[in-house]
Amino acid sequence: MNVEYGNSKPLILFDPLPRSKDLIFRPQQWDRFQTLGRIIHADEGRLDPDTVDTYLPAAAALVGQTDMPAERLNRAKNLKAILNVEGNFLPNVDYETCFQKGIHVLAAAPAFAPAVAESALAFALDLARGITAADRDFRAGNEKYGLAGNCDTFSLRQADVGFIGFGNLAGALLPLLAPFHCRIRVFDPWLPNSYVRDHHCEPASLEDVLSTSRVIFILATVTTENEGFIDDTQLALIQQGAAVILMSRAAVVDFEAFVGRVAEGQFRAATDVFPVEPVPSDNPVRRVEGLLLSAHRSGGLRDSFFRIGDLTIDDLSLILAGLPPVGMQAAQRETVARFRSKPGRRYKKEEL
Amino acid sequence: MNVEYGNSKPLILFDPLPRSKDLIFRPQQWDRFQTLGRIIHADEGRLDPDTVDTYLPAAAALVGQTDMPAERLNRAKNLKAILNVEGNFLPNVDYETCFQKGIHVLAAAPAFAPAVAESALAFALDLARGITAADRDFRAGNEKYGLAGNCDTFSLRQADVGFIGFGNLAGALLPLLAPFHCRIRVFDPWLPNSYVRDHHCEPASLEDVLSTSRVIFILATVTTENEGFIDDTQLALIQQGAAVILMSRAAVVDFEAFVGRVAEGQFRAATDVFPVEPVPSDNPVRRVEGLLLSAHRSGGLRDSFFRIGDLTIDDLSLILAGLPPVGMQAAQRETVARFRSKPGRRYKKEEL
Amino acid sequence: MNVEYGNSKPLILFDPLPRSKDLIFRPQQWDRFQTLGRIIHADEGRLDPDTVDTYLPAAAALVGQTDMPAERLNRAKNLKAILNVEGNFLPNVDYETCFQKGIHVLAAAPAFAPAVAESALAFALDLARGITAADRDFRAGNEKYGLAGNCDTFSLRQADVGFIGFGNLAGALLPLLAPFHCRIRVFDPWLPNSYVRDHHCEPASLEDVLSTSRVIFILATVTTENEGFIDDTQLALIQQGAAVILMSRAAVVDFEAFVGRVAEGQFRAATDVFPVEPVPSDNPVRRVEGLLLSAHRSGGLRDSFFRIGDLTIDDLSLILAGLPPVGMQAAQRETVARFRSKPGRRYKKEEL
Amino acid sequence: MNVEYGNSKPLILFDPLPRSKDLIFRPQQWDRFQTLGRIIHADEGRLDPDTVDTYLPAAAALVGQTDMPAERLNRAKNLKAILNVEGNFLPNVDYETCFQKGIHVLAAAPAFAPAVAESALAFALDLARGITAADRDFRAGNEKYGLAGNCDTFSLRQADVGFIGFGNLAGALLPLLAPFHCRIRVFDPWLPNSYVRDHHCEPASLEDVLSTSRVIFILATVTTENEGFIDDTQLALIQQGAAVILMSRAAVVDFEAFVGRVAEGQFRAATDVFPVEPVPSDNPVRRVEGLLLSAHRSGGLRDSFFRIGDLTIDDLSLILAGLPPVGMQAAQRETVARFRSKPGRRYKKEEL
Repeated sequence: MNVEYGNSKPLILFDPLPRSKDLIFRPQQWDRFQTLGRIIHADEGRLDPDTVDTYLPAAAALVGQTDMPAERLNRAKNLKAILNVEGNFLPNVDYETCFQKGIHVLAAAPAFAPAVAESALAFALDLARGITAADRDFRAGNEKYGLAGNCDTFSLRQADVGFIGFGNLAGALLPLLAPFHCRIRVFDPWLPNSYVRDHHCEPASLEDVLSTSRVIFILATVTTENEGFIDDTQLALIQQGAAVILMSRAAVVDFEAFVGRVAEGQFRAATDVFPVEPVPSDNPVRRVEGLLLSAHRSGGLRDSFFRIGDLTIDDLSLILAGLPPVGMQAAQRETVARFRSKPGRRYKKEEL
Repeated sequence: MNVEYGNSKPLILFDPLPRSKDLIFRPQQWDRFQTLGRIIHADEGRLDPDTVDTYLPAAAALVGQTDMPAERLNRAKNLKAILNVEGNFLPNVDYETCFQKGIHVLAAAPAFAPAVAESALAFALDLARGITAADRDFRAGNEKYGLAGNCDTFSLRQADVGFIGFGNLAGALLPLLAPFHCRIRVFDPWLPNSYVRDHHCEPASLEDVLSTSRVIFILATVTTENEGFIDDTQLALIQQGAAVILMSRAAVVDFEAFVGRVAEGQFRAATDVFPVEPVPSDNPVRRVEGLLLSAHRSGGLRDSFFRIGDLTIDDLSLILAGLPPVGMQAAQRETVARFRSKPGRRYKKEEL
Repeated sequence: MNVEYGNSKPLILFDPLPRSKDLIFRPQQWDRFQTLGRIIHADEGRLDPDTVDTYLPAAAALVGQTDMPAERLNRAKNLKAILNVEGNFLPNVDYETCFQKGIHVLAAAPAFAPAVAESALAFALDLARGITAADRDFRAGNEKYGLAGNCDTFSLRQADVGFIGFGNLAGALLPLLAPFHCRIRVFDPWLPNSYVRDHHCEPASLEDVLSTSRVIFILATVTTENEGFIDDTQLALIQQGAAVILMSRAAVVDFEAFVGRVAEGQFRAATDVFPVEPVPSDNPVRRVEGLLLSAHRSGGLRDSFFRIGDLTIDDLSLILAGLPPVGMQAAQRETVARFRSKPGRRYKKEEL
Repeated sequence: MNVEYGNSKPLILFDPLPRSKDLIFRPQQWDRFQTLGRIIHADEGRLDPDTVDTYLPAAAALVGQTDMPAERLNRAKNLKAILNVEGNFLPNVDYETCFQKGIHVLAAAPAFAPAVAESALAFALDLARGITAADRDFRAGNEKYGLAGNCDTFSLRQADVGFIGFGNLAGALLPLLAPFHCRIRVFDPWLPNSYVRDHHCEPASLEDVLSTSRVIFILATVTTENEGFIDDTQLALIQQGAAVILMSRAAVVDFEAFVGRVAEGQFRAATDVFPVEPVPSDNPVRRVEGLLLSAHRSGGLRDSFFRIGDLTIDDLSLILAGLPPVGMQAAQRETVARFRSKPGRRYKKEEL
């Protein structure tokens, strides 16, 4: 292997697995990416460790999920940034060393937020207005017309809404809710009240959000501290007939209790996430009447993945030009170690 | 029957069938309604003709759908308004005579617009994001995760949207679409281009709307002139993979052709209306994969009917105070005779 | 004079004084207007009475302010509409006869609403932030920097706002205020509470609006009933330091008391209207420190007048096609006789 | 001086000069601030160096502008954050050392953005509609009524707008412009095109922004690189009759050329900033007809300063709880050294 290159072309390691080049880059994006520097990548699969070690001392950026322990970071004298093309921060990077050395560590979560937020609104409307359930009844010959078909529906307009978690997803969802003029209560222990109020929402306790809302959006990240924090006692606070939309991670709720309460008819729910995916074929969750089922597909539009490509190219361009990144989510000292994420799914070529 | 009353209390005939008192008035609304005047009403069913004829000369207003031919109107010397508590104008009123005599004729269509518009957005999101279809797949054990579950989905954000008809419903839908920043083309032959542009949309021909839009909202009223105006030739213009939402009346499209094209996979569709309701139990429409089925239930929320009560009380109060009404839809000389509406459904007491 | 014409070309009397052809029509608009029918107009000044009487029996529409007493209307057998190119309804038309005959009477007030509303926002911001006053101080060498220059300023954001009158102008102003997230109280005795609430405002008494608002917009039309209804007793309710914006007509307030209270420093105000215009050169209003002065120029942008042309052409096109107008303000039986308007100003050719 | 304290109470150095306690904290805020830890502060003026050196090793946070060279930072073993209560980053901190040690350095610029943005809108409306100029004419007895008073005015609605700089201020201004439906072109060399497009604006070159916009907002920070980058050649590109609003720093334009072109009538302008403040009393800028003058007072509302207090308390609370700050502007390695800011003004007690 030959490692010659001039000074002017920055060296970029590209190691996107479980993503792939074609998943995140359209041909024109790939062309644009290549203009940013000399790209070192494997044709398929993961970049092999020897290649990484050969190029690391000269590399200006790593785009991907290569393991980066302190030992490697210490040899990466020119490294300015690690741009993870997933939606979260994995434990295979020594973040503290990155912070000390001023290496940006960025994740692509914002690429998915617009699609997930749109889906969250769709789920809320579906549950409030009974749309999927009514279609199912119609197909079974049991439809009810007009008012009779609305015995347990309600409008999202001016409804009491609750947010659990007020990060990326909430930021993308808020504008979509604006024309409904809802009263929105927010529980997020990582944010001060003034921040919530500046977004024209009301800070509230978890209990208040659960007990006063007709529509509840669960948008909180899983951390080392909050696993299952919405437990059965909390779920018991939810109003009869409310609509609960679970978008972030199954692990923030006691999932079994959650599904059980839906099955009993306390509230309706939609979920995009499950404790185990794929869900086993005989799992009874598939037969719960009041549950709207979505196979972790809210974020994964074709365009969301290309948006990863855009964010990566744009932030990398800024960083190589000596400017701070603006699009991706930056790892933060205080929180990065708390995230509990699983790697994304690897798609086969024929799925793209 | 005794017809004594002072001058100060206006006489109001109340004949809401097929609606009923309890369908449109909550108890407090009914109390408020009664403060407006002396209410003449049947305990059940339609006001009998003799009662109508007895009270008509003194009546200040008719709230309901009583037949009002010219002969009756000529005897109704004090009548200021007919407030129909349905969503449309029926042919049992001699409108021309009303116009000459300055009798307001009002319909309650605006009571339903907010709920119908919300439903239209829900349907658009459902079709674009494949929500009901994915739930059905999940229940059948065929769900696909992530990107694989999004092979024919798209986002409503910045999508090309088309409106066919730009009246009440469009007015209620536009603000809900605003945060999606769509390009919206509008076909409405009853409106000038400047009106459409003032609402930040683009006037377009029917053909342009059909052929350029990824999401098409059919919101046009049926008139004597436009029955079936979206025929198979027009439907052929719709893009492969588009989402078509039929909200107003089945009769504006060639419904059989419409369903046929959905069945063949040219586009997905949602419909709240059908040529015959209830839909016969063996109708194949129930089995069309790409069709989202809604049994004329988009407008009929419990609150929509109470909103009829509010609009009626508010506009009647204004009229009795010598002011013009502002909430209900006023019959207009040029168009009232063109509407082709069917009476609303009559609900039984136990359905309320 | 020769009055031959075929059946197919409708006859249109055009008598725009005090407006003129060039004031309301750009050349392309004029061309378009002429395609609507055969236009009968004077080259300059008012259409002479003989011409009016000659053409009236055949005329389909009158665009302008020609006197139309019952006698003339009775001879106007084909008249469908009177489109007044002013902003209000004058007493030279027998409105009751028009209503009986189904003749639309339309005014061009909506042409001015967007410009007036924009100006109202500008005035509110100016008073709240002290902009014109600070510029005046700066020119006099008395400017104060930073905080010192803000001893009596406030932000419009989340301010308590009051509307007096909730018609055309309020409708155009509301969206401009939306991003400021104000609490808006509304007094309008012609509108029911539900109408106000549907616009996300709060119905209130005049006293409440005056006493609780930091910014008060006076947008009410003058009627036979409300002249001077905001009298000195009412003005006394206004908060110390409030900002009052008078946009509609000077006659709705006791103007002298209004200016007096501004001069005494109770509140700041902006006014676009005056009891006598032009204001006499020695009128002390010119020297009141807290008063922002605007010479009835808020609506009169060049484009507002061309907008009259657009509205006229568009509504006339609809009417001639047998459709109801949608853009202009329609005279209403209950209210038209109550308006107390003065004719618009006549512009000389060299002013255009 | 006594330096005893338990482990549980963090030590906070408070050294706000040129701000003061009373400028940024209302009494309740000050109470809340004191609950965060043990506050070390001087009663008046700057914290003396000995006190700083005594407490520094134990301090968890510094709130204020104390000089923090590397030597001091190295002794500040427990320091988590420096919260500067000014609007910008001064050169008296060794930022690189802070980054290495993971010490947050935060500035209060976001406290001013809402007020400055509101003012920028007010200025734009004033220039477009000629408000201050018309008031001046009115006072001089030269007012023109209606159309005659609008010979060079225009509406902001749907105008072509240009932004130079797209940071804090632009972010606060964009929502205020939304209801005007402007086309907005943006020049900001620190941001990628996708970022601009995600905000529904169009990326453009400086030349395009200057030459195509009717309203230009200059919102760019001064850096070591961009001083005077809008020079006379650039200014020559501005359209005749445009409105230019200078909000950020006088030094980004060639100020003399800028004022000269306004004086000659090429465009109108508003400026909140001047190369030297206070402006000398005989400076001819005070007499330029087309220039709206504001004495650096756009941000400095009383509430803006209290907002500094809120941001400080909220971000400090988060940091002390082991969470990342969210409200203030964080210094960034790439850009902090480039800012060219002057310290804020010191207010005397009697000014508060």
